[in-house]
Amino acid sequence: MKHHSIIELIERKRDSGVLRPEELQWIIAEYTADSLPDYQMSSLLMAIYINGFNPDELAAWTEAMLRSGEILDLDHISAPKGDKHSTGGVGDKISIPLAPMVAACGVAVPMMSGRGLGHTGGTLDKLESIPGFRTRLDKDEFVRTVQKHGLVLGGQSETMAPADRRIYALRDSTGTVPSLPLIASSIMSKKLAEGIDGLVLDVKTGSGAFMKDEPSARALAETMVGIGAAHGTRVVATLTAMDQPLGVAVGNANEIAESFDVLEGDGPDDVVELTYSLGADMLVLGGVAADRDEARSRLEGVVASGAAMEKLQEVIAALGSNPAATENRLLLPTVPEKYELLATTEGVVTKCDARDIGVAGVRLGAGREKKEDDVDHGVSINVLAKVGDRVSAGDPLAAIEYREHSRLESALPLLERAWEIGDRASFPQLIIGHVS
Amino acid sequence: MKHHSIIELIERKRDSGVLRPEELQWIIAEYTADSLPDYQMSSLLMAIYINGFNPDELAAWTEAMLRSGEILDLDHISAPKGDKHSTGGVGDKISIPLAPMVAACGVAVPMMSGRGLGHTGGTLDKLESIPGFRTRLDKDEFVRTVQKHGLVLGGQSETMAPADRRIYALRDSTGTVPSLPLIASSIMSKKLAEGIDGLVLDVKTGSGAFMKDEPSARALAETMVGIGAAHGTRVVATLTAMDQPLGVAVGNANEIAESFDVLEGDGPDDVVELTYSLGADMLVLGGVAADRDEARSRLEGVVASGAAMEKLQEVIAALGSNPAATENRLLLPTVPEKYELLATTEGVVTKCDARDIGVAGVRLGAGREKKEDDVDHGVSINVLAKVGDRVSAGDPLAAIEYREHSRLESALPLLERAWEIGDRASFPQLIIGHVS
Repeated sequence: MKHHSIIELIERKRDSGVLRPEELQWIIAEYTADSLPDYQMSSLLMAIYINGFNPDELAAWTEAMLRSGEILDLDHISAPKGDKHSTGGVGDKISIPLAPMVAACGVAVPMMSGRGLGHTGGTLDKLESIPGFRTRLDKDEFVRTVQKHGLVLGGQSETMAPADRRIYALRDSTGTVPSLPLIASSIMSKKLAEGIDGLVLDVKTGSGAFMKDEPSARALAETMVGIGAAHGTRVVATLTAMDQPLGVAVGNANEIAESFDVLEGDGPDDVVELTYSLGADMLVLGGVAADRDEARSRLEGVVASGAAMEKLQEVIAALGSNPAATENRLLLPTVPEKYELLATTEGVVTKCDARDIGVAGVRLGAGREKKEDDVDHGVSINVLAKVGDRVSAGDPLAAIEYREHSRLESALPLLERAWEIGDRASFPQLIIGHVS
Repeated sequence: MKHHSIIELIERKRDSGVLRPEELQWIIAEYTADSLPDYQMSSLLMAIYINGFNPDELAAWTEAMLRSGEILDLDHISAPKGDKHSTGGVGDKISIPLAPMVAACGVAVPMMSGRGLGHTGGTLDKLESIPGFRTRLDKDEFVRTVQKHGLVLGGQSETMAPADRRIYALRDSTGTVPSLPLIASSIMSKKLAEGIDGLVLDVKTGSGAFMKDEPSARALAETMVGIGAAHGTRVVATLTAMDQPLGVAVGNANEIAESFDVLEGDGPDDVVELTYSLGADMLVLGGVAADRDEARSRLEGVVASGAAMEKLQEVIAALGSNPAATENRLLLPTVPEKYELLATTEGVVTKCDARDIGVAGVRLGAGREKKEDDVDHGVSINVLAKVGDRVSAGDPLAAIEYREHSRLESALPLLERAWEIGDRASFPQLIIGHVS
């Protein structure tokens, strides 16, 4: 590879110039090979943060990150391969019922998920509530499992998109996280390395989301769809509301239980609705359904027949865990103490703040403030009154299960302010729009 | 000192916000104490580069850098204390005749100078042409010398403004050098640490200068004058042309010889003119002359009487070197080979490019491409035809003294393009304006 002067490249981006694909590839390759020091990369990242990337630069940067490590080759799997990614929210357990439903319909799902950080939970943490569930799979086991069962759920391999992992850590300590091109390329480099044919994105907006307003969520969705097109992978995005938590369960074991409910046809309306909607996109992208209506019927079919639940049980067993937990919820972790947050007045819930409830969950121990923190899988918040619901004074707003009183004490002020009760509120729209 | 979150501070500057004085002090203190990693500092420096500093931030940043190390306390010296700083050019030896002239007039000059880098020379390198001249003085010797003789010439102490030295090195490798506030604070933190009462700045503009155009040179001058005012030190600046070299001599030993000529009343017009002009400002700032006219008479007086040359000889002797070099130029280093660059046509010199001649000097060995390079004090370019001069074909444009033929070969293409000869050109204006 031709040698470039990193200082000249930093200067060009600093002055709002354009970096060429081979220059961006060189930067990522040098950084991955430890030949470019952090202090030069962080200077460049700040220049990118402030001056941005044009679509060609963004495509080349993403491509270089995804090629910095191993790329899964799933060509020997004849089924269409698809995945879903959510930008993260509170109570967002959609991946867990979604993946087996879609797999049961014939789209192979090699799903790599992340851990929770800050107020948002992570699918891996939730899955680890299932006793014995292993999320660290080596590449061979990951590929073998999706090949055999059409489904695998695991953590991202260390060997995939290593540049993204290192750049993310550097951004995290240099004030360059909330950059649209850097976020979009980070997500897409990891997902495109999975060797999938189609990707469905759930881009959230609202108090509990990374993107607080709809225009920035839409811009992120459009940017990621564009990266997919440049890479030659079909990507569609749904914009969804994250002003209040998804479903009832916020935590880990309780979110797993709610996921099982969805697979049994008995989940909360919003979770069911979003799971079917994203699943329909996956089936259409995968070419196993002609349109969203047909796709939705097929998804309802595999829930009604039990095939979706069987698919999940099959994979739980394949990964060495006990599928009985899906039938006997008592096998999931619990904690001893309970507390009910009660409404103090009569009226209609006008606010049920996702971020406050998410942070309260972290304070109870359900999530992480820092990467090193451990997660207590049993603690939970069950959200019993949501926006538009009518309550009387004394009605429960939330049921909290906790282990340590001091943690409850630190969570309560957030929970007490999370709900507002007023005269009227309509049930909010969950699905805001589609980008493709 | 209160602890701040560096990430929050980086984010604020990234978003064009304002950092408070105590926050800037904390950043500089942490960086100097090795508690802030380079990758966070470089990210912040890029944000400062792009989004700038307001005057309050700039004053606080400069103050923090100057307080990061030792500050000379010269209060026990009753004479006014002054210094001059040039932003750097080609053939700029002004400090060497200027400092003893001003000292001979009663303003103490504790002058700390730098080394050459790139196409510009450095006063320390030139001084080291004088056999035995020591430029590394410890603080005690530096202070003792200026106290006893009213003059000292030396390198900057490692203990003064260490934050500036480290930040400069980081900027040099992260594309954040040519930033007005970062340049201004770097210069001023070093100069204000000298414990002087007044500072005269020579801000150059043109092909051989750091600032290529007059508006940016004026902005830098105004910024530095403002920093001086905030610190409580009187600072005046002169904007001067650096399109062609100053004087005849470009090199090291030849620039020392030309400096001696100026002290003997026999220097090239432009060097004499600028030395008197900057010296007049120093005398007025120091309060030893009522106005520039009176100051100029006094400077001419100490040249005519030989007092200025005696002052320099006194300090050369005090620092352990041989003052005879000022009378016997043969004691200065020379090189064996000579080459004359001749005019190929008749006409008037319309261009004599400072930058090309400066780079040619570096290629001959008179300067440094990299910090680690050694300087060959004997090699030299003498500029024999300047803009406005009439020449005939065959007249010498420059006399070059060199050591290695290969180095001459690499310098010649630059020298051959440095001169242009046309129909007419007026003698250019050297002193463009004043800022105070």
